[in-house]
Amino acid sequence: MNESANSKVTAGVDLGGTKIQTVILRNRKVVGGCRELTPQTGVAGDVIQAMLDTIRASLAEASAAESEIGGVGIGTPGEVDSKAGVVSLAANVPGFSDPVAVGPIVSEALGDVSVSVDNDVSVGVLGDARRGAGRPYKNLLGVWVGTGVGGGLMIDGKLHDGRGAAGEIGHMIVKPEGRRCGCGRRGCVEAYSGRAAMERHAQNLMKRGRKTNLFKIMKRRKREHLSSGVYAHALESGDPMTIKLIEQASWALALGIASAQNLMDFEAVIVGGGLGDRLGKPFIDSIAEQMRPHLFAPDDAPAVIGTELQDLSGAVGAAVLAGG
Amino acid sequence: MNESANSKVTAGVDLGGTKIQTVILRNRKVVGGCRELTPQTGVAGDVIQAMLDTIRASLAEASAAESEIGGVGIGTPGEVDSKAGVVSLAANVPGFSDPVAVGPIVSEALGDVSVSVDNDVSVGVLGDARRGAGRPYKNLLGVWVGTGVGGGLMIDGKLHDGRGAAGEIGHMIVKPEGRRCGCGRRGCVEAYSGRAAMERHAQNLMKRGRKTNLFKIMKRRKREHLSSGVYAHALESGDPMTIKLIEQASWALALGIASAQNLMDFEAVIVGGGLGDRLGKPFIDSIAEQMRPHLFAPDDAPAVIGTELQDLSGAVGAAVLAGG
Repeated sequence: MNESANSKVTAGVDLGGTKIQTVILRNRKVVGGCRELTPQTGVAGDVIQAMLDTIRASLAEASAAESEIGGVGIGTPGEVDSKAGVVSLAANVPGFSDPVAVGPIVSEALGDVSVSVDNDVSVGVLGDARRGAGRPYKNLLGVWVGTGVGGGLMIDGKLHDGRGAAGEIGHMIVKPEGRRCGCGRRGCVEAYSGRAAMERHAQNLMKRGRKTNLFKIMKRRKREHLSSGVYAHALESGDPMTIKLIEQASWALALGIASAQNLMDFEAVIVGGGLGDRLGKPFIDSIAEQMRPHLFAPDDAPAVIGTELQDLSGAVGAAVLAGG
Repeated sequence: MNESANSKVTAGVDLGGTKIQTVILRNRKVVGGCRELTPQTGVAGDVIQAMLDTIRASLAEASAAESEIGGVGIGTPGEVDSKAGVVSLAANVPGFSDPVAVGPIVSEALGDVSVSVDNDVSVGVLGDARRGAGRPYKNLLGVWVGTGVGGGLMIDGKLHDGRGAAGEIGHMIVKPEGRRCGCGRRGCVEAYSGRAAMERHAQNLMKRGRKTNLFKIMKRRKREHLSSGVYAHALESGDPMTIKLIEQASWALALGIASAQNLMDFEAVIVGGGLGDRLGKPFIDSIAEQMRPHLFAPDDAPAVIGTELQDLSGAVGAAVLAGG
């Protein structure tokens, strides 16, 4: 933000349930980075210590001193009180179900540096919108397809969060009385397109006698859940159930995005998140193709594109949030 | 806009296929108005002359001279080139299918006064958002239920039109492969909730032997189509088909609004338009009630309210557009 503060660097931290990704930006460029596994001890302090470790390791890679940090941004799952820097209900992050004052704690540990905290999906969309595939656009929708399906809106070049809860494209309804969603309702986009909902559906199909090699691949890759990589490998192997699951996922995303587009007339839609990034262009092109027949203005279809920053969107966006 | 120009008045014209409604605002208050039937000669010039007549009659009621007009706003159906003040494809307005330079013509006729032209639904939403039921809110969705279903978005206190086509809540998809819509696609909100689509559906049901007094009421009231008043009277008479049609209309609106809400987190939703205004509170409350189970954040449901300006929303909004 401050053009004269070229000597300062900004740290961006993408906190996830399995990993912590941190980057250092100097003059808007990534000059250092570090990724670590998220400590699974269940103690919030251990997770925060790991975040600080990644920041310090990233600084070392950037040949920057701790005193050069102008700001730290943190993207996190769960509910975020941005003003207080407090995170709660982040069930995937061990120790973060109860409220954690991650902002103030990180600030103090780094010599009272300013720390900004926001929702991981918003921050990821911000990253790719400002520094990645979304740079040419001022009005865009980010759709982050991972364990769930989250979203973020850029309107007139700024993140738009309504009263704090905007962007839930995963809970737009694409089929009345349709498949049960993790949110308790039915027929949401996420019920067809989120990794967790797809896994539940696959288990139900198996119980009914349908075959798939999804869970074999999961075990072989030593995963506890169907990860994006597991879906990608099963898809490459030609597993019929996986093909069907991914078809249904792209169908639901296409319908939800089409409805969002008819309402908002975006210039572009960026599809990211773990599954979006992993399945990449064929998946995104399939969404774009299925979206088009539902557009009110098909000749003015939005660009439907993947992320440019891939799994760095979140960390870069967190740094952008902090002025980097 | 100009606080010191208190001596000036602003005219707002709501151009429709059946009527032209004009108001004069002075110091943000309606001080004159006039409504006339839209000339059905098929000549655009006759329609424009009628618009000028309503402006002059409204000025007379406001005891204002033509030289006191600070600006004129016009809300019109069809495609609008706001910059050029040109309207086209307004099939409902006789003579307005081909492009009509309504802005420049009205400007010249009134001594080169500044004329602003925009879409009738956007202008209606602007009117009630700024001077009616929407005054307490900065982020709201207007849903105008009439022959079709249109919409308008206020974001951070300003009309948001995307690349010019935002607001088409009538073409959000609420049922995949559902009822055929006038736009050629299937399952849109408008296919269930627009007067024209409801009329087509009623005719199909009659062909299949179902009974209704909708068309008897239409003839008795000397209408060529099922107007909002016809639906209202049939509903009051307890006509089962009408009850069902209105239930389906509110169901589709509820689903579309819920999806829009989950995406945008609006503070309020204003339901207006001919049918919305005519059916009023019971209809709007039914939409709100059916919307709630589909909200991702039901405890933060938006206010779902009717218009305050009723059938003056459009004319007042047109005047607001022109700085009144």
